[in-house]
Amino acid sequence: MSENAPSKPGTIMSGEMAEQPAMLRRILDEGAPGIREVAERIAARNPRFVLLTARGTSDNAALYAKYLLEIKLGKPCGLTSMSTTTAYGAQPDLTDCLVITISQSGGSPDLVASTQAARDAGAITLAVTNNADSSLAKVSEFHIDVLAGPEKALPATKTYTAELLALYLFVEGLRGAGEGAADTAKTLPDAAEAVLARKDEVKALASRYRFAERMVLTSRGYGYPSAKEAALKLMETSYIPALSYSGADLLHGPLAMVDNVSPVIAVVPDGKGGEALQPVLDRLRDRGADLVVIGAQAEVDRASAGFALPTDGLAEELQPIVEIMPLQMLAYEVTIARGQDPDAPRSLAKVTETR
Amino acid sequence: MSENAPSKPGTIMSGEMAEQPAMLRRILDEGAPGIREVAERIAARNPRFVLLTARGTSDNAALYAKYLLEIKLGKPCGLTSMSTTTAYGAQPDLTDCLVITISQSGGSPDLVASTQAARDAGAITLAVTNNADSSLAKVSEFHIDVLAGPEKALPATKTYTAELLALYLFVEGLRGAGEGAADTAKTLPDAAEAVLARKDEVKALASRYRFAERMVLTSRGYGYPSAKEAALKLMETSYIPALSYSGADLLHGPLAMVDNVSPVIAVVPDGKGGEALQPVLDRLRDRGADLVVIGAQAEVDRASAGFALPTDGLAEELQPIVEIMPLQMLAYEVTIARGQDPDAPRSLAKVTETR
Repeated sequence: MSENAPSKPGTIMSGEMAEQPAMLRRILDEGAPGIREVAERIAARNPRFVLLTARGTSDNAALYAKYLLEIKLGKPCGLTSMSTTTAYGAQPDLTDCLVITISQSGGSPDLVASTQAARDAGAITLAVTNNADSSLAKVSEFHIDVLAGPEKALPATKTYTAELLALYLFVEGLRGAGEGAADTAKTLPDAAEAVLARKDEVKALASRYRFAERMVLTSRGYGYPSAKEAALKLMETSYIPALSYSGADLLHGPLAMVDNVSPVIAVVPDGKGGEALQPVLDRLRDRGADLVVIGAQAEVDRASAGFALPTDGLAEELQPIVEIMPLQMLAYEVTIARGQDPDAPRSLAKVTETR
Repeated sequence: MSENAPSKPGTIMSGEMAEQPAMLRRILDEGAPGIREVAERIAARNPRFVLLTARGTSDNAALYAKYLLEIKLGKPCGLTSMSTTTAYGAQPDLTDCLVITISQSGGSPDLVASTQAARDAGAITLAVTNNADSSLAKVSEFHIDVLAGPEKALPATKTYTAELLALYLFVEGLRGAGEGAADTAKTLPDAAEAVLARKDEVKALASRYRFAERMVLTSRGYGYPSAKEAALKLMETSYIPALSYSGADLLHGPLAMVDNVSPVIAVVPDGKGGEALQPVLDRLRDRGADLVVIGAQAEVDRASAGFALPTDGLAEELQPIVEIMPLQMLAYEVTIARGQDPDAPRSLAKVTETR
């Protein structure tokens, strides 16, 4: 048997999920100073506006960064529509713009092309990748290595949480938080370890979705990228169609689709995002939805079921790094329960060559 | 029977869809000069960045405007994450920013609050609504009335195409296209009329989805907002879970979910967006997907089925105004076929009071 064909389905994905606590420690100990330096050099250039470019899992990390940049830094942000450059040849004036491109592999040709175009158009360019030797890192003026180590499973797990933490440290660096940022985040590795140890709980939750034909995921604020990433993870491993909406968007139409046989998973941040989500949770309960909550114990108690997060003392903006883990595990367990291999979803390649 | 309880399900929605050709004529004849004037006054202020704020159907119109602004005007753009202001109290510096808020009713409290906050933060604010007396119109420095006339069905149809055309004329005005813009669009009303007359074709397509348990919609570039809006329309009327992805994003994960019993609808623009979509269509055909195409006749011929659009001579950026119509009709027909009332989806209110 070659090393590329492990004996048990999901071995690679579960191994990579398990690496996350050590990886978070590595980023805090070894990565943080370099990230802070990059942030300080970019802060000195005083960007007015930030554009974020990414696809798939990294696009959800980009959305997380957008919340941080808008809320903590007061910078207007946008997520790039890449085809405007690659298909239509748009030539925007990007003076005073910081363009952040996030990619695990740093190898997708459209990301490299659009970053090069942004740099030519006057932008400050920053690549956030898991590969310092990638083409993307090379065409960008600045580069942050997320230090996740090689990722071999097709569904990205550890590179997602690595991207989140690296982006958190970067935004803290931009606003001049100094070494305090890594300090605020120092309980993350232990919290991650505690969550990852609760496999049996997730397995029990997974049995609930053995025959689900669709799922809806929702959240608000900092938790919204987690809902989107969980939906992507569930789709690409278990093939369950998983729709994700911000709580407010759910009320603008898609709520009609939710009934008493519709499983809904809500990520309820312990903080302002969770407060803003309460009216949505009430509406879902009114509609008789099967509501599973990832959040604080009190929120789980008010739902049909859930996974209680150890969020005590963890700032709301850091919770996404932990709250995605039970959802990664859920995607894994549902997929195993359905007799499929989470390591190798049909029809996907690790580096997606979109142009 | 009161006027609010029509005798036949879908009477209101079908009536409003049928108003679209006359409405497009009204916007071109009566609305265009006022829109041009607003655009010229804003152009004189030379905004550097544009932020677009909206929810639901109007958010898809915002995405359309984002493509126009980036491609035709070279302005970096972002779609707002409203909760950053309404839940987290973010206070970005919006000097040199144009903030466009799009809302059929102009009445949603979060849109009013975030527009007021944007104005306080130094932004040039523009409301695009179907109600000149709305709170949103009043808190905004500038206002464009999309002139769709009262919309009573819960699923928005004519206000969507009205928003698209108003935004097209606005962006043309921003770039100083003068009266030529309305001229370029002058074939739209006839094209819309021709499409809306083909009810029988859409009815036949609808029978294909009578028992569909999910759908995937995809497109690229200018057609992507159409795919998203079609998914929303299908969900809120028929309750079929409808997932929408840009073609490139579909390849980054969700493609795993598509198999030979997965209905896929592709909106194939006649232009660069359609060209960029070809590799995605090839992958979908390889996977044995049931591929229905909305696009030029040649594209329909290569798919399982479809609806051929009369796009001859219609610029790619104007096609979205026509291509959404067979999809509105499809949502309507699928819903009627399932014995439900498209006028009154369960659990939705016309003005969604998100905060």
